[in-house]
Amino acid sequence: MEKIRIKGIIPPMITPLESMNRLDVEGLERLIEHILDGGVHGLFILGTTGEAQSLSYDLRYELIERVCDQVAGRVPVLVGITDTSLYESVQMADRAYKCGASAVVSAPPYYYAPAQQELIDFYLGLADMLPLPLFLYNMPSHVKVVFEPDTVKAIAQHPNVIGLKDSSANLVYFHSLIQAMKSHPGFSLLMGPEELTAESVLMGGDGGVNGGANMFPKLYVDMYNAAVAQDIDEVRSLQDRIMAISNSVYKVGRYGSSYLKGVKCTCSLLGICNDFMALPFQKFNAPERAKLKNILEGLGVDVVNP
Amino acid sequence: MEKIRIKGIIPPMITPLESMNRLDVEGLERLIEHILDGGVHGLFILGTTGEAQSLSYDLRYELIERVCDQVAGRVPVLVGITDTSLYESVQMADRAYKCGASAVVSAPPYYYAPAQQELIDFYLGLADMLPLPLFLYNMPSHVKVVFEPDTVKAIAQHPNVIGLKDSSANLVYFHSLIQAMKSHPGFSLLMGPEELTAESVLMGGDGGVNGGANMFPKLYVDMYNAAVAQDIDEVRSLQDRIMAISNSVYKVGRYGSSYLKGVKCTCSLLGICNDFMALPFQKFNAPERAKLKNILEGLGVDVVNP
Amino acid sequence: MEKIRIKGIIPPMITPLESMNRLDVEGLERLIEHILDGGVHGLFILGTTGEAQSLSYDLRYELIERVCDQVAGRVPVLVGITDTSLYESVQMADRAYKCGASAVVSAPPYYYAPAQQELIDFYLGLADMLPLPLFLYNMPSHVKVVFEPDTVKAIAQHPNVIGLKDSSANLVYFHSLIQAMKSHPGFSLLMGPEELTAESVLMGGDGGVNGGANMFPKLYVDMYNAAVAQDIDEVRSLQDRIMAISNSVYKVGRYGSSYLKGVKCTCSLLGICNDFMALPFQKFNAPERAKLKNILEGLGVDVVNP
Amino acid sequence: MEKIRIKGIIPPMITPLESMNRLDVEGLERLIEHILDGGVHGLFILGTTGEAQSLSYDLRYELIERVCDQVAGRVPVLVGITDTSLYESVQMADRAYKCGASAVVSAPPYYYAPAQQELIDFYLGLADMLPLPLFLYNMPSHVKVVFEPDTVKAIAQHPNVIGLKDSSANLVYFHSLIQAMKSHPGFSLLMGPEELTAESVLMGGDGGVNGGANMFPKLYVDMYNAAVAQDIDEVRSLQDRIMAISNSVYKVGRYGSSYLKGVKCTCSLLGICNDFMALPFQKFNAPERAKLKNILEGLGVDVVNP
Repeated sequence: MEKIRIKGIIPPMITPLESMNRLDVEGLERLIEHILDGGVHGLFILGTTGEAQSLSYDLRYELIERVCDQVAGRVPVLVGITDTSLYESVQMADRAYKCGASAVVSAPPYYYAPAQQELIDFYLGLADMLPLPLFLYNMPSHVKVVFEPDTVKAIAQHPNVIGLKDSSANLVYFHSLIQAMKSHPGFSLLMGPEELTAESVLMGGDGGVNGGANMFPKLYVDMYNAAVAQDIDEVRSLQDRIMAISNSVYKVGRYGSSYLKGVKCTCSLLGICNDFMALPFQKFNAPERAKLKNILEGLGVDVVNP
Repeated sequence: MEKIRIKGIIPPMITPLESMNRLDVEGLERLIEHILDGGVHGLFILGTTGEAQSLSYDLRYELIERVCDQVAGRVPVLVGITDTSLYESVQMADRAYKCGASAVVSAPPYYYAPAQQELIDFYLGLADMLPLPLFLYNMPSHVKVVFEPDTVKAIAQHPNVIGLKDSSANLVYFHSLIQAMKSHPGFSLLMGPEELTAESVLMGGDGGVNGGANMFPKLYVDMYNAAVAQDIDEVRSLQDRIMAISNSVYKVGRYGSSYLKGVKCTCSLLGICNDFMALPFQKFNAPERAKLKNILEGLGVDVVNP
Repeated sequence: MEKIRIKGIIPPMITPLESMNRLDVEGLERLIEHILDGGVHGLFILGTTGEAQSLSYDLRYELIERVCDQVAGRVPVLVGITDTSLYESVQMADRAYKCGASAVVSAPPYYYAPAQQELIDFYLGLADMLPLPLFLYNMPSHVKVVFEPDTVKAIAQHPNVIGLKDSSANLVYFHSLIQAMKSHPGFSLLMGPEELTAESVLMGGDGGVNGGANMFPKLYVDMYNAAVAQDIDEVRSLQDRIMAISNSVYKVGRYGSSYLKGVKCTCSLLGICNDFMALPFQKFNAPERAKLKNILEGLGVDVVNP
Repeated sequence: MEKIRIKGIIPPMITPLESMNRLDVEGLERLIEHILDGGVHGLFILGTTGEAQSLSYDLRYELIERVCDQVAGRVPVLVGITDTSLYESVQMADRAYKCGASAVVSAPPYYYAPAQQELIDFYLGLADMLPLPLFLYNMPSHVKVVFEPDTVKAIAQHPNVIGLKDSSANLVYFHSLIQAMKSHPGFSLLMGPEELTAESVLMGGDGGVNGGANMFPKLYVDMYNAAVAQDIDEVRSLQDRIMAISNSVYKVGRYGSSYLKGVKCTCSLLGICNDFMALPFQKFNAPERAKLKNILEGLGVDVVNP
């Protein structure tokens, strides 16, 4: 298996839907082009932002195929295969491989809470069966367990394991990973929360998997470039904008799903795609959509589909 | 849809496996007979104790069919359809219906953490599409959210919703449910943790979904009957035995998976079925198995397959 | 030191205040008589319900003296000495001893979160220096750690340690304590949450430290007696009333402090004492007080001080 | 009250003890000089690292006096007044004022868990009664609540409130504070965890309250200066050293108290002061001390008191 090094901004793509079990195909095409136009370095589908766990398997399979076809090698496509069943994870990875994806991404099984040794057992078993390189996905708020640095080191002994995306928002942990992985120089460490991408890159990280890049891909690419260039003034200025989005667009709804709904509804307001959501979530109602429209206009964003 | 009232001991059956994706078919047959011989009032498959989330869908489908065929109406069969995707839940329920199951059981989607209103939306949507009566399954340690009593009342307005299994181990909550559901006299409230079944029945609950009944079904049936008869001396005496099992058989391993491994390995030591486990778990190693054997002998249990 | 056995209902008394640092002395006298008139088996001051941690040390000292003087041996007085400083705990216990209290009560130090061995070290050190018998107080929601059953056994080796009050609301844990302490027959196990006192006594517990007994002492005494008599019908009937209070009186406010404010405001509405609270809490405002008055009248309680 | 602006490295000083209730006076003097020699910008006593909550009040009073006397205005002294009782907090602040301290520091009351409005009530009440400027101290792991950014803004309306120390290790939160406090230009935002000081300063923070500066004050001062100078290469190089300490010196013990014990034992190994700890903690035993000695030597540190 060829080793690839993933760096830069790899947006975790939302999944445009028309209904519970049907893709918004035209919206999906527009969304992919919108994101790629921003200069991103890769595309990650079927992650948390992609509502993967809420979708049927058939729809996930269809999405992999359509995305790989349209991206057509312009950037690497990473496919989320996170599942509670190792067997279903492998099935999904096989499909991703056949469609031409570059790597797969897996957060720990998320019903039971495995111990660290059980994580090692699971991932060494999984990596053996995968046809593509594997990114680990640290997501303790959703899966209840953390990949401890020693666990990452143990799993990274396997040649198929090429990096880790950290969505813990815990930078002490991220620093420990940077230290632990100095002995694996090709291993990519990517930051999930966009509010922390700049400093993680300044301190030695490799990039960001930032949901805001569905809406404003160039902003996060600019931030990444400023951090790589160590241009602190530019970093702080872009960070102000990123925090302004984070503290408004993601705070419209009443529930923990506000972030997801905010991203999806913004893409709808920008005229890119449908904002239908798979249960247990539902798209913003009219007052929430109107509130978000006002927020976007306050941020100087053109709303074409109010 | 015919209303059924579920009462008594309904064991959450382990899933006997030969390998990652193959049932231990003979062990499964012996296990079903072993449990039914104990006088239980129903059988619940594909729950937490059944490792449902770790199994492939095809294997889950096969299990439903085999169990329904063998039980053949002797007791009601309840089928876990807990899934993060509503669509896949409905597919599973359709299979359960075709196989002759009596009801389905669903814990909340367990990747995202829905808010209470989102739970209501999800379950009213699900109940509408189900061909069988629905039991709610409160399991906050695994799914991160609780069914608040008002949420249960809202969902129970739907005629397909017939009860709730509570595995929170929070009896203040259980008492609140008893109070809240007094206006729904046919609604069943079952206790998950076997350590609490006796008192929940004394205080007005309807029974227990107790994992220990895989190993010793009669013990939990006796406890249920003593509680129904309000025979407190007998209840306390049986509770001592139940606690002795809980504090030994379930404490052999080092991880949170000790309970599951303890039940499955005991069934193997009793000569009933294989103790293979689906990843991320692995069956007890030889020293752990030997330790468990000693514990069982100390409890006066015949170990036929050391 | 004489061994005493604490059983029955021992209300955790609220602390009537006129202002931040002044007792409502007349209210305190009325409150003590009101509680003792209900037939309680002891009185516990300076616990969680007593706002101990929010009070100055001088005021706590004054309270100990006044309560011991007025109770004058009619029932045992237990004094909370919970503190983060072992030294200050001992000072408080010395005062309690001089005033004639029967025992002291201590939850773990609550700023740092000690490990189990550190709990053992702390409590063996403390017990050595105490002039009175010691009750342990398990209160994980407030102190962040649990007394594990093996820890309780280790600490209970010390002859000064006579019991444990459990406010975890975790009955699996309580059952484990009952089992663990069978080898210490004089050790008292008391239940904190009043919603669980009945079943804990049915299953072998020794009584309840129930906040509702500030308002309605006889109700909780009746419940205790019904449980001791194993009169399940009476238990269930009284439990309905106790749950009705729990689900209304304690749910008026918007914050976690609702329970405390509900008890204190009810005592004010009953004409017993002032409902002033020490910061960080504040007494109910007028609309909340009016709402509580309506709730009490709905429960058939005479409100004499609306 | 004069407004002061606190910036730079302000070490949270350990409290040298000879026994439970006696200061190691000579060790204290050496420790203060050791820290000041490192070029720090202030000194913070009676914080979490200072074991404040485990000490008697009399000992805390003595410490305030001794430290203020010896520092004698060379740098600002900040005094922790964190307490569950507002009244005792004010008493402590009065003593700090009389001794010549520059400011006081307060984490939320830590037994009850106040709601945000209750935090506002508490702190506005406290700030009114204080003779010195107040730093807020965000420490959710120990006090169970977070100062939400809107809460900080509300409290910062009070002219006595001059800054916040954040020990949450949550940089998304810290960024939200930076944004929220842009309208209060004089407000200091300091980082607790030393692993995050560099990047917080790069992104606009004002400095660090870093426990490692008890042992190696110059290292953290150098890091602060490199971050202020935006010298990223130097920052990364110093960060490697800071992480090496964090991942070794603080990981010797088995419990959550490892960090505290590691700092204190290192100061003993450096010949600075006694490593006696107040219960519930105990100093490292001989094997742990030997292990720490080896770690320090591996880091190139001279151990003079093995």
